[in-house]
Amino acid sequence: MRAHKPGAGGPALRAADSCSQPRLECSNPRAPSQAFGCSIFPSSTATAARRAGAALQWEERGDVTCPLLFIQLNQLLSTPAGLEWREMARWIKFEEKVEDGGERWSAPHVPALPLHSLFQLRTCLQKGTMLLDLDATSFKEIIDKALSEQPEEAELQPALRERLAALLLLQPQHQPTKSLLQLLAELGLSPCRGKAKGRPEPRTQVSKTPLKEQLRNRFKKKVPPGAEAAHVAVGEVEFLEKPFTAFIRLRHGVSLGSLAEVSLPSRFLFILLGPPRVKAYHEVGRAMATLLADELFQRVARQAEHREDLMAGMEAFLDELVVLPPGKWDPGARIPPPSHLPAPRRRTAVDPLDQQPHGNGDMTAAGDRASPGHPRSGEELERTGRLFGGLLRDIRRKAPWYGSDFSDALHPQCLSAVLYIYLATVTNAITFGGMLGDATANMQGVLESFLGTAFAGFIFCLFAGQPLTILSSTGPVLVFERLLFSFSQDHSLDYLEFRLWIGLWVAFFGVVLVATEASHLVGHFTRFTEEGFCALISLIFIYDSLKKMLSLADAFPINWHYRLDNVTSYSCTCNLSSPGHSSAGNDTSLPSPLTWQPPATPAGLSRSQCLDQGGHLLGTSCQYVPDVTLVSFLLFGGTFLSCTALKRFRSSRYFPVGVRKLVSDFAVILAILASCAVDALLGLETPKLLVPSELKPTNPARGWIVFPFGANPWWVCLLSAVPAVLVTILIFMDQQITAVILNRREYKLQKGAGFHLDLLCVSLLMVVTSVTGLPWYVSATVISLAHMDSLRKESATSAPGEHPEFLGIREQRLTGLAVFILMGVSVFMAPVLKHIPMPVLYGVFLHMGVTALNSIQLTDRVRLLLMPAKHQPDLAYLRHVPLRRVHLFTSIQLLCLALLWLLKSTVAAIVFPVMLLALVGIRKGLERIFSPHDLSWLDGPLPGPGAAGTHPRERLEQGGTAEECEPMQRPGAQINLSVN
Amino acid sequence: MRAHKPGAGGPALRAADSCSQPRLECSNPRAPSQAFGCSIFPSSTATAARRAGAALQWEERGDVTCPLLFIQLNQLLSTPAGLEWREMARWIKFEEKVEDGGERWSAPHVPALPLHSLFQLRTCLQKGTMLLDLDATSFKEIIDKALSEQPEEAELQPALRERLAALLLLQPQHQPTKSLLQLLAELGLSPCRGKAKGRPEPRTQVSKTPLKEQLRNRFKKKVPPGAEAAHVAVGEVEFLEKPFTAFIRLRHGVSLGSLAEVSLPSRFLFILLGPPRVKAYHEVGRAMATLLADELFQRVARQAEHREDLMAGMEAFLDELVVLPPGKWDPGARIPPPSHLPAPRRRTAVDPLDQQPHGNGDMTAAGDRASPGHPRSGEELERTGRLFGGLLRDIRRKAPWYGSDFSDALHPQCLSAVLYIYLATVTNAITFGGMLGDATANMQGVLESFLGTAFAGFIFCLFAGQPLTILSSTGPVLVFERLLFSFSQDHSLDYLEFRLWIGLWVAFFGVVLVATEASHLVGHFTRFTEEGFCALISLIFIYDSLKKMLSLADAFPINWHYRLDNVTSYSCTCNLSSPGHSSAGNDTSLPSPLTWQPPATPAGLSRSQCLDQGGHLLGTSCQYVPDVTLVSFLLFGGTFLSCTALKRFRSSRYFPVGVRKLVSDFAVILAILASCAVDALLGLETPKLLVPSELKPTNPARGWIVFPFGANPWWVCLLSAVPAVLVTILIFMDQQITAVILNRREYKLQKGAGFHLDLLCVSLLMVVTSVTGLPWYVSATVISLAHMDSLRKESATSAPGEHPEFLGIREQRLTGLAVFILMGVSVFMAPVLKHIPMPVLYGVFLHMGVTALNSIQLTDRVRLLLMPAKHQPDLAYLRHVPLRRVHLFTSIQLLCLALLWLLKSTVAAIVFPVMLLALVGIRKGLERIFSPHDLSWLDGPLPGPGAAGTHPRERLEQGGTAEECEPMQRPGAQINLSVN
Repeated sequence: MRAHKPGAGGPALRAADSCSQPRLECSNPRAPSQAFGCSIFPSSTATAARRAGAALQWEERGDVTCPLLFIQLNQLLSTPAGLEWREMARWIKFEEKVEDGGERWSAPHVPALPLHSLFQLRTCLQKGTMLLDLDATSFKEIIDKALSEQPEEAELQPALRERLAALLLLQPQHQPTKSLLQLLAELGLSPCRGKAKGRPEPRTQVSKTPLKEQLRNRFKKKVPPGAEAAHVAVGEVEFLEKPFTAFIRLRHGVSLGSLAEVSLPSRFLFILLGPPRVKAYHEVGRAMATLLADELFQRVARQAEHREDLMAGMEAFLDELVVLPPGKWDPGARIPPPSHLPAPRRRTAVDPLDQQPHGNGDMTAAGDRASPGHPRSGEELERTGRLFGGLLRDIRRKAPWYGSDFSDALHPQCLSAVLYIYLATVTNAITFGGMLGDATANMQGVLESFLGTAFAGFIFCLFAGQPLTILSSTGPVLVFERLLFSFSQDHSLDYLEFRLWIGLWVAFFGVVLVATEASHLVGHFTRFTEEGFCALISLIFIYDSLKKMLSLADAFPINWHYRLDNVTSYSCTCNLSSPGHSSAGNDTSLPSPLTWQPPATPAGLSRSQCLDQGGHLLGTSCQYVPDVTLVSFLLFGGTFLSCTALKRFRSSRYFPVGVRKLVSDFAVILAILASCAVDALLGLETPKLLVPSELKPTNPARGWIVFPFGANPWWVCLLSAVPAVLVTILIFMDQQITAVILNRREYKLQKGAGFHLDLLCVSLLMVVTSVTGLPWYVSATVISLAHMDSLRKESATSAPGEHPEFLGIREQRLTGLAVFILMGVSVFMAPVLKHIPMPVLYGVFLHMGVTALNSIQLTDRVRLLLMPAKHQPDLAYLRHVPLRRVHLFTSIQLLCLALLWLLKSTVAAIVFPVMLLALVGIRKGLERIFSPHDLSWLDGPLPGPGAAGTHPRERLEQGGTAEECEPMQRPGAQINLSVN
Repeated sequence: MRAHKPGAGGPALRAADSCSQPRLECSNPRAPSQAFGCSIFPSSTATAARRAGAALQWEERGDVTCPLLFIQLNQLLSTPAGLEWREMARWIKFEEKVEDGGERWSAPHVPALPLHSLFQLRTCLQKGTMLLDLDATSFKEIIDKALSEQPEEAELQPALRERLAALLLLQPQHQPTKSLLQLLAELGLSPCRGKAKGRPEPRTQVSKTPLKEQLRNRFKKKVPPGAEAAHVAVGEVEFLEKPFTAFIRLRHGVSLGSLAEVSLPSRFLFILLGPPRVKAYHEVGRAMATLLADELFQRVARQAEHREDLMAGMEAFLDELVVLPPGKWDPGARIPPPSHLPAPRRRTAVDPLDQQPHGNGDMTAAGDRASPGHPRSGEELERTGRLFGGLLRDIRRKAPWYGSDFSDALHPQCLSAVLYIYLATVTNAITFGGMLGDATANMQGVLESFLGTAFAGFIFCLFAGQPLTILSSTGPVLVFERLLFSFSQDHSLDYLEFRLWIGLWVAFFGVVLVATEASHLVGHFTRFTEEGFCALISLIFIYDSLKKMLSLADAFPINWHYRLDNVTSYSCTCNLSSPGHSSAGNDTSLPSPLTWQPPATPAGLSRSQCLDQGGHLLGTSCQYVPDVTLVSFLLFGGTFLSCTALKRFRSSRYFPVGVRKLVSDFAVILAILASCAVDALLGLETPKLLVPSELKPTNPARGWIVFPFGANPWWVCLLSAVPAVLVTILIFMDQQITAVILNRREYKLQKGAGFHLDLLCVSLLMVVTSVTGLPWYVSATVISLAHMDSLRKESATSAPGEHPEFLGIREQRLTGLAVFILMGVSVFMAPVLKHIPMPVLYGVFLHMGVTALNSIQLTDRVRLLLMPAKHQPDLAYLRHVPLRRVHLFTSIQLLCLALLWLLKSTVAAIVFPVMLLALVGIRKGLERIFSPHDLSWLDGPLPGPGAAGTHPRERLEQGGTAEECEPMQRPGAQINLSVN
């Protein structure tokens, strides 16, 4: 007797069922004996793949999806109080096991099964009761029907049937998921050795309504809405002589009261009871649950009409199994869920990593960045061939979205994004403002930085093509400003006027670039170029911050020869009487205490008073400043270490994710605050950030408007076109590389990019910032990425062990606008800012440089040079490129870097942007040394910083288990970033 | 036609074969169709296990072992130059794959196979040619025989046969293993894109003698001597219509020339050639290799007489398989080899971790440490019931070994052990000497520490029961000396005389303990006690080092109110004229620069001269010492961080293991040297270690002999018995716990322990060190463990991915003696030692305290308090004990610790050792709160620091992948250590 219901209401039912539209191709299911072929190479893998493909086709159409299954395994255990059903494990995607004595859920893991249990399960399904599309409204009804519809040869005695029914209807004991607080609260409450309280009496029946503990269960959050439940019940029963097996599919999802841990409509039930032999039943139960947790089998099980359909589904599952040989791994170890799951239709490939065509396969000389495998830029970068054609297209593309750019921002997530990005922007403005002030003798200081950021950012967010971009001062521009200022000093030019003309020229060139649609040239920059650029900037940051710190030792010299015993010989007095005697500070050697004479004209004047009155400082301690340098070094080191530690806190195991994320996101500001507090507590006169207390330029020598003529010879305004070319190259590279990263397809942006429009905005802003003497601004990659990250839309629930699905970004203009309005208001923060010591800022910069340097692949490859081959991580390119080629590539890159550094240190420093272009040329030359295959791996596309992660391979292979990584920490995300 | 040779020379041959003594129980092999039973629960697992057990029985007898198999997979690939055999993978225990383009070996990994390929392989073995015990001397002969002995229905055409033979005889391309240096050398040599040079021409035949590259192959080192080779050759051949399969076992291991990567005698060959269908052949080849790499199958294959035997062995293998469900894991990920492999006879258990009986199962109240599951002490700790019975037994046990204690030391390994342990001992003597000198006003200083260590260590190594033990000052004794000294000061007692009497009493009590065989009481201390002890000592170390550093700020005060502008107002002069005016240093507030008056009597006297002449220092800068404190803090932090970083360097990926081990072993001395160098370079007057430059006591107030009477009242010598009881408890605990750890069974010591003899030696040494006023010495766990570690005997070769086997320790007395002779000579190092700044030593102590605190399980459990349940590591006790019980246990332990700390901080501090005994009482009380099951997990035996690792579970589950850990870093090894 077969229990499935053919015909009757089948088709109507299937139409009603949300996921049974296509018919399963199993009209000719292979007999089980044929499954593992006798022909030497059966084509079962291919068949299974074909069927699986067919089963998946309608998913691609995207109209219907199957509800997820929550599967619970209950096992019958004998306790002192009698037999008892107890929850042993659960599945959504991965297995979670109840730890025997631990009264807790294990971490989700890949369910590893003994091959045997699967074959036992197959026998069970072949021989046992099978009820497909059963109509029932309660658990009791289901049990009764299942017991009465036994196959003939296994018909049960009525008495036995009653005992079984009674047993099956017992209330199972669930393992609730508890929060840390609940656990700690229980700590005091349950000093006795008994089980946790609040559980229902073991001998009651399954109730028809959900229990309180079910409704309170925190696990409910993890189950996506619309999910259904499957129950697997296994156990040994002494009064049974033969096993009793039943597989039941309900016609409709029916809520079965307190049967499951969480109250969900139930769809499948599997019951296996038999004579004592516990282990086997448990494993068969696990096998059934694992089978049901399989997407493909689930589809088959939902629409199977005959037992054969189900068996065919199982064969398909068996066909795809991967086995681990016995004795070669530790069976006690649980395999953690992978961070990247193969797509169902592709999973039949044995080693997709090695088989998959490489994204950048055959790279053409000019188009690798825009090659089909690497679609960083869509039609946005296509040439129209008309003047301003790209710009017009940008405007036409973005205009329809302008309204929604404001309405889409109405979500609480945007509020927190504003706060976070505001703090990041302020930190950046302070640090870059401080450094700029330092580099330009305060011609551009913190105040200018605040004003400029607020103004430029606001305008950009209002008009730009990609309003998710955050403008900021960036590393390369800072380096160039430093060079420009020293050039002006060396050649006695007025810096601001010179800079105004450069800015105007840059704006002009920028507009020309927009008109000629130059943005499509981005395709010529490869990882080689960008890494060279980024490494150079990072090294400059590291070198500069260290140099600044060492120069503090000159500004506040330490008397290393100080001897406690000579304390009486150290003094400094003001010498007003002998103006000719000006060698106050030259007496560096320690004078003999016995020959030392007291100052001739002691006067109660302070240092500044003395100098004001034309006096000289005389004495052995005048030139020394105790403690300041050392405290500065402590602050510097402390800031650097705490920045690094706080950033890393995200991947620690402590505290909930929310807390960790918060701390990590605000790492830099927290480190700055802590260091400032320490500095304030100590009270030493460390060098502080210079901020004017009123709204006037930091350097009193300048006004708010820079006049184009007057200070420099007239020909300077024409000559400025030369450095302007350099700045244009710099701005163009910096702006466009960031824009390309932000507009990657992984981010699933809906409203499109606006490369030409963005460049136009940046160019026009150059005019304003040059005229007002404010810093120049381009897109800042790290902050922009952080901005996008804080606006991520993710699926609300995810199965344990699974990462939440990335849905897209909240694309709107409002958060950016709000950030820059707040920024403008912050100009009045000057009284607070002046308490920030400079060493703290240097520490932040060191952190930025080190982080940026660590984020590029070049650094990884340099590390490989030091590693014996067997300790090297399993990186994708090492699987495909011979190690010596990798080392050769690294060496060439290092050589280029050394050359760049040498050039930078000479007088030719100002042509620095041109040197970057030279990198592009060298990269072209590399094509003569390396094969296209090698280059495609070594100099391929940058790994996606994206949420969806088109390059999960690299992330996977860098040995990460389930470590969460944010865009800021992902490789490549910080390429030529952090340094901005 | 079946090709195996029945009867003929079978039995005689099997007797000659080294590993075929027992007969395989496969007289009734199951037919393949029955393998995956049709009865609902076939007992095949049990059968397989039984047969596997039988196959393993003779291994347990230990007389014969099978040679290891090196398995190489060659695949036929079509290259532009024609068909070519290329090595694709190799196995010894784990799989290593040739990375396609990488021209390198992958890391060893667990071979994951598609289930399918195994079934295909089964078909191949069932239907193909099978030649068992083939007699052949060359590869050509083998091929010819294999081709001619095809089964009838698959008989090959002669022409085809020739083509196949020619193909099979082509020389395969091996993938050599290269060193980093070779690789770097090649970097320059091969700028062209071609393959590496030096390979033989592809179209040559397999040579009969090994090639140069085979002999030069660095992989040879990894293959244990006596190993044999197996060859798997698979590929697609266009001219074949049906697959050709052959499984060949040679009668004798025959060297087949250049066929294998390394030249070894070959035993097995498997050939599979067929019509084009690459993927499948490759996977079948992998399946064959994996099967041959299985220990049990290998045994079966070596003695199979019929095809059925082989098939039965394969069924047994299939029975034990574990499967991974499709789509739930990343097929590209390679599973790293586990650090612990299940024993073959146990591996059929599915989850041994959960099933295995827990070592300390039912713990009895008094005997948990000596319970059968935890045999820390063998018969050495049994009571004889006679006075000095244990001591006599110790002497009787050790006497026969005395000669070999010297002869066994003749190995170069001992030389490096001497150097390493000497440096560790010197570091310890310096640090503890410095701290002791600090604690006792230099009554015991560095010089005493050197002399005492040399003397006590030498005597102990000469006479003790366990000469691997290294004596040293330890943390607890240091703490007690500190308390004792301040007690003497407070009660105006002569410290050394008081201490002499205590020492004499302790020696007396010690002898009494030896006589009464008290050492067996060790069984009462559990992890709870030891962790309490260790945590307290660690905290004292951390607290003390920080307190010492902060007290530097008092000794060298910083003028936090220093203002650069007031530089003219800071001075310090000697005031000789007004002796009444003694408030030189009270004027802490900054004087107004205008009201300040120059000193009345300026004199060119230095500070000491001034004070000597009865003068006073007058001025605003007299009380301040610039820079010294801050530099001290920098040195302190630098030493601590560099100690920690260098220690961790061992588990980094950089540089070969040898270099890392060296750096890590000498971490402390390197950190000290570096910090001293920095200090010397800076040249500031930091506080230095006080060492007398001559061979006289550090404190000039004492002599070399302490007189028993004179300074203290006569009753003090009787009263000393009270503190002596405390010291006895301390010494007893410290000495015996270390001794028990050192004598654990995991170390496979052959010569036995001598608990009573050791205690006697320590007690008698107390007499000498008390009389001469030298520090007291007990066994130092960390250094002793390091000593044993440096004397480990390990198997020379190990398969890739496998850890080398631990064979035992070189037990001898000579290394210890040499170390202490060197130590004695080092007394003359004083001129060098006095350059060591104290902050550096404090940094080392902080490092020791933190490391010790990190090594105990209590710290792990405290961390758990801060972790959300889902982020907690998969620790063994968390699987078995409810989290709230774990937290309760931790809380109680923390409470005890807090109480101990409070007590320690009050006047009752000197009863400190008694408080430790109280921990034992509290532990007894815990048995009323916790179930024996919970306690067995939480307060079970300490994890083995041993090499053989009887507790690999914990190490495994603490998430370690393949990180090497040395005893010093292993959990538990540093229990009450590091702090010694």
